[in-house]
Amino acid sequence: MKKPAVILLSGGLDSTTCAAIADDAGYEMHGLTINYGQRHNYELKAARAVAKQFKFKSHAIIELDLASFGGSSLVSDKVEIPKNRNLNTSNNIPSTYVPARNTVFLSIALAKAETLNAFDIYIGVNAIDYSGYPDCRPEFLSNMNSAAQTCHTYPINVEAPFVDLTKGEIVKIGLTLGIDYSKTWTCYEGKERACGQCGSCNERLEAFALNNSIDPLLYKN
Amino acid sequence: MKKPAVILLSGGLDSTTCAAIADDAGYEMHGLTINYGQRHNYELKAARAVAKQFKFKSHAIIELDLASFGGSSLVSDKVEIPKNRNLNTSNNIPSTYVPARNTVFLSIALAKAETLNAFDIYIGVNAIDYSGYPDCRPEFLSNMNSAAQTCHTYPINVEAPFVDLTKGEIVKIGLTLGIDYSKTWTCYEGKERACGQCGSCNERLEAFALNNSIDPLLYKN
Repeated sequence: MKKPAVILLSGGLDSTTCAAIADDAGYEMHGLTINYGQRHNYELKAARAVAKQFKFKSHAIIELDLASFGGSSLVSDKVEIPKNRNLNTSNNIPSTYVPARNTVFLSIALAKAETLNAFDIYIGVNAIDYSGYPDCRPEFLSNMNSAAQTCHTYPINVEAPFVDLTKGEIVKIGLTLGIDYSKTWTCYEGKERACGQCGSCNERLEAFALNNSIDPLLYKN
Repeated sequence: MKKPAVILLSGGLDSTTCAAIADDAGYEMHGLTINYGQRHNYELKAARAVAKQFKFKSHAIIELDLASFGGSSLVSDKVEIPKNRNLNTSNNIPSTYVPARNTVFLSIALAKAETLNAFDIYIGVNAIDYSGYPDCRPEFLSNMNSAAQTCHTYPINVEAPFVDLTKGEIVKIGLTLGIDYSKTWTCYEGKERACGQCGSCNERLEAFALNNSIDPLLYKN
């Protein structure tokens, strides 16, 4: 019998590759997507497509209105999304930051894991995000893992296989595992085709280029 | 100028006493109540009354549907609420357990703290709960505090002043601080008057009795 695992699934490149790793390791997969008031539904659509692609045993979409706390362009129409974000040149937190996002996501994943008697949670945070988001840092993930070891009657593990990897290295793993990346969604903009210009699109395109591969996603230009 | 603090407020005896401690320490208080699909709205009503009583600067009520995960009588109509819970005689988790509740509550409080630039979160977990709920244990709270120190650009403190106290000791503090406990709500049942029979009512009545004091709350009998 397969062991259950909870996969935090945004429908993006990282969480999809994370799902492929858990699938490859033989887990019975249970997806968890948090709808935290994103500006558009392309991410949710992508998450559903990925869950279907990997034949998830279950996929819960939980509504949580973090937007009411304010402060991030990812969840507010009042803040402009930054174009051509210059990576790794600043330790400032990008304006796309959502407060305590990974802490909140992991805690809800722990709740899901408890009800499934699952021992493992997969989260696709990675080294690129490390530059700006405190809750993607190895130290934070290690501390959340310690909390997860003690929050229930048995220890739960927080698996973050990409924490020290670059986006290029993540895509390399995904390509090796044969992932169809055409169903994933990365763009911060809520248009029918990815913009190819925002920080997320730039990172993604660069990651494929580094692997001498073509991103199968449809772009505006 | 007062420093802001986030107070996790259920409207019960512990969180209300916790609010009184933060008030006494001179914080600008911001309440946070999570509506996780409780069986009744008396708790929410009590939380609003307590926030008003202490002149909270703000009070956010966040909806989070943990009930969809199942497994607890606190959030499900399918499980019967245990009467006369025999305390401290078992290490089993009571059926009133909500999966990863304090982990989830603290993570949302961290999100709130970040948007307020607050350095402190108050949570009223206590030693009685320790007997059955893993996420009330000192070890877990210490680990969540470590996560809170590293999840943002500055360290956030998780203050759990009652973690080693009994319910009687908590009520003693509250009575000294002059709390009006008539507005608080403890009963697991969703009736107009508290039942006086469930585990929570028993604990509460005993705590007042230990302080030679009368609980000002209206009971059924």
